[in-house]
Amino acid sequence: MNTPQKIVLVGAHGTLGRAVHTALRERGHEVITASRKDADITLDITDPESIAALYRQVGRIDAVACAAGTVPWKPVTELTLQDVRDGLEGKAVGQIELVRQGLESVAEDGSYTLITGILAREPIRTGTVASLANGAVESFVRAAAIELPGRQRINAVSPTVFEESLDAYGDFFPGFDPVPVRRAAAAYVRSIEGAQTGQIHRVE
Amino acid sequence: MNTPQKIVLVGAHGTLGRAVHTALRERGHEVITASRKDADITLDITDPESIAALYRQVGRIDAVACAAGTVPWKPVTELTLQDVRDGLEGKAVGQIELVRQGLESVAEDGSYTLITGILAREPIRTGTVASLANGAVESFVRAAAIELPGRQRINAVSPTVFEESLDAYGDFFPGFDPVPVRRAAAAYVRSIEGAQTGQIHRVE
Ligand SMILES: NC(=O)c1ccc[n+]([C@@H]2O[C@H](COP(=O)([O-])OP(=O)(O)OC[C@H]3O[C@@H](n4cnc5c(N)ncnc54)[C@H](OP(=O)(O)O)[C@@H]3O)[C@@H](O)[C@H]2O)c1
Ligand SMILES: NC(=O)c1ccc[n+]([C@@H]2O[C@H](COP(=O)([O-])OP(=O)(O)OC[C@H]3O[C@@H](n4cnc5c(N)ncnc54)[C@H](OP(=O)(O)O)[C@@H]3O)[C@@H](O)[C@H]2O)c1
Repeated sequence: MNTPQKIVLVGAHGTLGRAVHTALRERGHEVITASRKDADITLDITDPESIAALYRQVGRIDAVACAAGTVPWKPVTELTLQDVRDGLEGKAVGQIELVRQGLESVAEDGSYTLITGILAREPIRTGTVASLANGAVESFVRAAAIELPGRQRINAVSPTVFEESLDAYGDFFPGFDPVPVRRAAAAYVRSIEGAQTGQIHRVE
Repeated sequence: MNTPQKIVLVGAHGTLGRAVHTALRERGHEVITASRKDADITLDITDPESIAALYRQVGRIDAVACAAGTVPWKPVTELTLQDVRDGLEGKAVGQIELVRQGLESVAEDGSYTLITGILAREPIRTGTVASLANGAVESFVRAAAIELPGRQRINAVSPTVFEESLDAYGDFFPGFDPVPVRRAAAAYVRSIEGAQTGQIHRVE
């Protein structure tokens, strides 16, 4: 049997976050939700002070799972420098900051699970910033894994487009085989309850 | 025979840059060097205005090759938020900005060649920021390749540690098989004179 864990879930109200929330509750875990609105704890991952406040409030936790992250979508010829920086802050630096500031709050054998996506390895039109932010997070995960304190672990979940998001984004993923979002949620369970670290769990 | 190209080489005085410079001259290309000191053009890739000035000065060029980029080296437990941002600016945003601002100056069939490194895929101690910056650039290269204007191309060169750098960095790469820097320089020639795009040329 799995041991119930106290888990902070960032972005619990999104398409992915809702599925992760359901999966973690089904496994008997205590989930504390965090996002900019309607969550247990108000958190903006692009605001480092808000991350500090999160960790002050939650005390000792077993896991941090992130299902948030936003980037600008534009053709590379229309990108501004600010778009590049916004995307890095919104998806990469924000998630990295969750780890960096969490080192002392997460249990000795706790874990971090970050979200990336297939665009790290396969590009689509208007996806340059998403790609570069995802690539940054995936390489960060592999690197941080070998130096985390105690027996802390870190993994990324890297899904293709969700069936549930096809109405919104399907046109940008021609011919991509979508996955049900619950398969990505299962990868969070695998990261949190499993023993691996430094893994990029592809869901495709 | 290869057609001589007019090439901007960023970081031409470094360990890698010197080898790239030699290789490009041997192939008959015209090389304009750019870096913070002792170069044809003074350039700091972390200063967007200095990149704009570079392109104003050089006019139409056939290729941009970058052999520069700096990141902080620290254990993940000692990293600051500023270290993360400095590394992203110093190796990822700076190189991306060379591409973004170069779109109008580089010839219709011109190319960009950026530098990453093995840490994108294999971590070493104190290398978290190097890893995440390299990962960002590699995913950017794959993504930008499908949207560059005209027939412009972009590739990355991703080497392991150089034999020539073992005295300086060898202790951080235990058991890694070093390569002579001229092999990385050859990958620049392959990127610039070849026809591929979106490639990560591993040199290991
Ligand atoms: N949808 C897909 O097909 C797909 C596929 C692969 C990967 N992904 C990745 O999965 C992640 C979630 O995607 P999704 O489609 O589930 O997005 P979504 O439906 O828009 O949900 C995003 C969630 O994150 C929260 N959030 C957004 N920005 C935040 C911030 N700065 N600080 C804190 N919380 C924030 C939102 O809540 P608040 O608005 O309350 O803050 C919301 O709960 C994204 O990183 C996306 O790139 C998605
Ligand atoms: N050395 C290795 O074993 C190895 C292996 C794999 C990858 N790499 C990568 O290859 C690249 C070059 O490494 P290296 O060992 O050749 O470095 P290096 O010897 O320190 O040379 C760096 C060069 O880049 C220039 N430079 C540095 N910062 C700059 C900036 N902000 N703007 C413009 N120019 C700048 C420097 O000139 P100025 O000081 O005049 O600006 C110098 O010409 C790095 O990105 C490194 O991560 C190196």
